[in-house]
Amino acid sequence: MLGNFTYHNPTKLYFGDGALGHLKEELKKYGKNVLLVYGGGSIKKNSLYDEIVDILKESGKVWAEVSGVMPNPTLEKLYEGIETARKNKTEFILAVGGGSVCDFSKAVSVSVNCKEDPWDKYFLRFEEPECDIIPVGCVLTMAGTGSEMNAGSVISNHKEHLKIGHVFGEEVMPKFSILNPVYTMTLPEYQMKAGIYDIMNHICEQYFSGDDDNTSDYISEGLMRGLVNSSRIAVKDPQNYEARSNIMWTATWALNTLVAMGKSTDWMVHMLGQAVGAYTDATHGMTLAAVSLPYYRYIMPYGVKKFARFATEVWKISPEGKTEEQLAKEGIEALESWMKEIGLVMNITDLGATTDMIEGIADATIILEGGYKILNRDEVVKILKDSL
Amino acid sequence: MLGNFTYHNPTKLYFGDGALGHLKEELKKYGKNVLLVYGGGSIKKNSLYDEIVDILKESGKVWAEVSGVMPNPTLEKLYEGIETARKNKTEFILAVGGGSVCDFSKAVSVSVNCKEDPWDKYFLRFEEPECDIIPVGCVLTMAGTGSEMNAGSVISNHKEHLKIGHVFGEEVMPKFSILNPVYTMTLPEYQMKAGIYDIMNHICEQYFSGDDDNTSDYISEGLMRGLVNSSRIAVKDPQNYEARSNIMWTATWALNTLVAMGKSTDWMVHMLGQAVGAYTDATHGMTLAAVSLPYYRYIMPYGVKKFARFATEVWKISPEGKTEEQLAKEGIEALESWMKEIGLVMNITDLGATTDMIEGIADATIILEGGYKILNRDEVVKILKDSL
Repeated sequence: MLGNFTYHNPTKLYFGDGALGHLKEELKKYGKNVLLVYGGGSIKKNSLYDEIVDILKESGKVWAEVSGVMPNPTLEKLYEGIETARKNKTEFILAVGGGSVCDFSKAVSVSVNCKEDPWDKYFLRFEEPECDIIPVGCVLTMAGTGSEMNAGSVISNHKEHLKIGHVFGEEVMPKFSILNPVYTMTLPEYQMKAGIYDIMNHICEQYFSGDDDNTSDYISEGLMRGLVNSSRIAVKDPQNYEARSNIMWTATWALNTLVAMGKSTDWMVHMLGQAVGAYTDATHGMTLAAVSLPYYRYIMPYGVKKFARFATEVWKISPEGKTEEQLAKEGIEALESWMKEIGLVMNITDLGATTDMIEGIADATIILEGGYKILNRDEVVKILKDSL
Repeated sequence: MLGNFTYHNPTKLYFGDGALGHLKEELKKYGKNVLLVYGGGSIKKNSLYDEIVDILKESGKVWAEVSGVMPNPTLEKLYEGIETARKNKTEFILAVGGGSVCDFSKAVSVSVNCKEDPWDKYFLRFEEPECDIIPVGCVLTMAGTGSEMNAGSVISNHKEHLKIGHVFGEEVMPKFSILNPVYTMTLPEYQMKAGIYDIMNHICEQYFSGDDDNTSDYISEGLMRGLVNSSRIAVKDPQNYEARSNIMWTATWALNTLVAMGKSTDWMVHMLGQAVGAYTDATHGMTLAAVSLPYYRYIMPYGVKKFARFATEVWKISPEGKTEEQLAKEGIEALESWMKEIGLVMNITDLGATTDMIEGIADATIILEGGYKILNRDEVVKILKDSL
């Protein structure tokens, strides 16, 4: 049953291979002092950096830069971003990159005018900003996190071995995002594949929860079916625009709040994966892939009906002559075989995790309550060991 | 392939059985002079009118009323609404009703400050408003049109035998909509069923066009599967909140621009149905039902592949040992048998159309170009005759 909810997503999206053409009209709406945020410099290898700098110049902007935002943005980097923004009286933040750059920019946007320490306030105490928030716009270069149309931000604190996400209110959502699938085509295949699984897992986290009948789950099934189809094409032919554009658009809708509306959600795979990430600094999507199957196999008996539905509705497995348990098992097997087919990392050992990290990773795992079985610490340890 | 597009839908939605509780906070954002728009007075039979009047009073608003907005709002009624709004210096329009009341309110909102005749400007010449637009908010009492989250407005000109819709820009979208599924439970069954088919047809109009692979069609398939399931429950048990809430939410997403993003669309069933409506004043959803099958059977040979996909993906028809043509035919048969099962009007004769109206209805039918076969006038006549 759809519970009560409020839906509002004000982010404006420009999609397609000419989408950057809209940047100039958007920049007009904001102040002169821009903070340009990007990652490891791949945008300098292709022409994107130059194109954006030209548009900033044509728009009469003065800009400072924060570069080198890493795949799992750290608290130290966040402090650097805040300082640069303060020094340059930043009025608008332009994030050019993947989910990490968007997440990082949102964290800066709520921290520049905040007097408290952002880690304590936003990531440990999960408080909402009371200060003025600096508007953010995105030019997306990687599909996966959905950060381009949501208010989420994940920051890693390596000293504390913690990687924590905060989903803020709509005022933190990007004002606009520019989504050009062509930008994603120069990504290394490993990143593309990690992004694909990040998308799949975002949908699964919202799907594998509750036993009601609701519109959100039907939309999720459609998105998963489309993603499986496009991912198979993209892995064989990464330059296939049709597949890459479908993947990019699916990523946005997988985590822009729509499919969570009116229903319960889980997010334990993300909690496990983020704890693995805090210890290994591994690519986010791959940490999710590496812990997913041990987790789903463990909780499956508590949510058999939904896993059976997953089998028939997403993977088109015939229910004929099968028990719900058999179907549920076949659904997870179909997921596993697709994961292997597209080439994901299937265990945390391959991501650098070792047996002696397990207790620490378990300590770093935040236990949430939305799934079919609320885990205790022993179960977290068991799932992590099964993931080795 | 997903083409280039801009997506932006700023309407804020409050969904659920307590959603009216948000009206007061929304009203604070707008001026004192409110125009309260509603239909035939069913909101006075239940307590909704009184609840809203209390909220208006508590909010310190002064309001004028336009009541008696009919299921197919007329140009005469639009002129009346504009005059009342002008006389009362309306600063905000509150639409309480179904799609007709929302459509009507949007038409008033773009006309109050417009010096030209709104029929000529917006519905004959399809021009965009240059004047100040009065903000609109909706309290929805019927699920179907999607008008609560889009910028569409359909007005009937009985003198000219024309019923024409204009899809405006995002500035005409309601600022907020309050969606309480309980309000839809007091609707006559005929209206509920007409609404269900309106939703289904909105999705079909956007689905049966193009032969590319895109995310939108997967979302559409999910929405259709969910709708078929919920409609079967609602027809047997109209008081089932789960089913009615799913239908209401599906209606919103069936026509709030999402599933049209990046793809071609058709809309010929609406053109045919609206022309029938211009002559018979029949309920919108039923006019669509009555012309759908003759239209789809006629164009099916030109879009066999999509109709075959419709059969397997929406109706779960096994493709084994069947040609695409057979599958496509079985898909339409499955649609037909569902339509009969939920009790739709299956021909235009039952809606009051007669043989001698056919030429006039054909004249009133706007021919669009998005479908699998661009119709000529003879084909329009043939389809209308097959619909008798």
